Amino acid sequence: MINNLPANTVERLSNYRRTLHDLKSEGKTYIHSHQLAHLLKINPAHVRRDLMLIGFTGDIHKGYDISRLIESIGKAIDCVHVQKVAFVGVGDLGRAVADYFNYQGTKLQVAATFRIGHEPGTQFPDVKCYNISRMKDIMHQEHIELCVLAVPYSFVSDVSKVIVASGVKGILNFTSSRLKVPKEMYVEHYDMISKLEKLAYFTNKDSCPGD
Amino acid sequence: MINNLPANTVERLSNYRRTLHDLKSEGKTYIHSHQLAHLLKINPAHVRRDLMLIGFTGDIHKGYDISRLIESIGKAIDCVHVQKVAFVGVGDLGRAVADYFNYQGTKLQVAATFRIGHEPGTQFPDVKCYNISRMKDIMHQEHIELCVLAVPYSFVSDVSKVIVASGVKGILNFTSSRLKVPKEMYVEHYDMISKLEKLAYFTNKDSCPGD
Repeated sequence: MINNLPANTVERLSNYRRTLHDLKSEGKTYIHSHQLAHLLKINPAHVRRDLMLIGFTGDIHKGYDISRLIESIGKAIDCVHVQKVAFVGVGDLGRAVADYFNYQGTKLQVAATFRIGHEPGTQFPDVKCYNISRMKDIMHQEHIELCVLAVPYSFVSDVSKVIVASGVKGILNFTSSRLKVPKEMYVEHYDMISKLEKLAYFTNKDSCPGD
Repeated sequence: MINNLPANTVERLSNYRRTLHDLKSEGKTYIHSHQLAHLLKINPAHVRRDLMLIGFTGDIHKGYDISRLIESIGKAIDCVHVQKVAFVGVGDLGRAVADYFNYQGTKLQVAATFRIGHEPGTQFPDVKCYNISRMKDIMHQEHIELCVLAVPYSFVSDVSKVIVASGVKGILNFTSSRLKVPKEMYVEHYDMISKLEKLAYFTNKDSCPGD
């Protein structure tokens, strides 16, 4: 792992890796920075700077060696041990993400999903779904470090207390509440309500000019 | 509705409104820009600029009238008619968002959720859950305009074709695939895998220095 990478670089490296996996599965072995940038609709200068930060260089004629680059990105951003992720109150979204993580050999593993208010019915391959009342025990037992949280407002306070007590290190927060967590815990907040209101605005501003 | 607001302003206005609703329910009637900025951890200059863009002015001594500001934000960003939103493959996340939209009197309404691969069991108040095979009919029948999409990779292509054919105007895309949609359709992409890999990096970079 390379310390002190900028947050945006880490996100882009993760993105590059996914695209590189796709290219590799199509049989490609080399790619130029401007081609990768084009596929991801970003600036080629970003690609070159990000790869410079992880000390990766390409062949001036052939471009970057795809397999080696996938490996280098892994060395730069993955921890050596597997980190387990839990999805709390997100159901099928957990499944969509598990599809990628659990089969691409990254160091993240979707280890559990938790649901509120009814018996967990579905289980998808390799990932168990539990009733939220069992969360504290399972979090400890499975050594879960990261958590995606999306529960209704009235549950946020109680559920986040259990998460903090479970020794989780980072939360991807989809609730519309600011969480009360210790300051050493890393929280990434995603505000779906604002994103949806923005979507609504932009899909309507031309069709409802007279509002 | 005010045309031509910047995307970031629309997102922040949506955020202000939510915070103002909370303040109002606590019995507060006025707030200053720096107080609102402090609650949202943003720059007070942003608050003042955003409210200037919607033509809202406060009282120099008392600050902004909370009820009037909620109303003005609604006039600026909401369409006059109700827009219906569907959640495809997101289960409880739909419920969390419905909690807010369907009870705060905004112009967005979570009208349906769709699930893959098993019979829809749960229904939460006011929002029906359907099997995804019924999506096309229900989308038309309910006049759904916005859609939150989070299905596993292997479903993305088929499901997004149905969404496009249903006349939906905007998609909040949680899948890791770039969608093939007509260019007049508004797509907001959220890449959960990159966000989780970023979270993993920042929760580990100090504890795994030797990697």
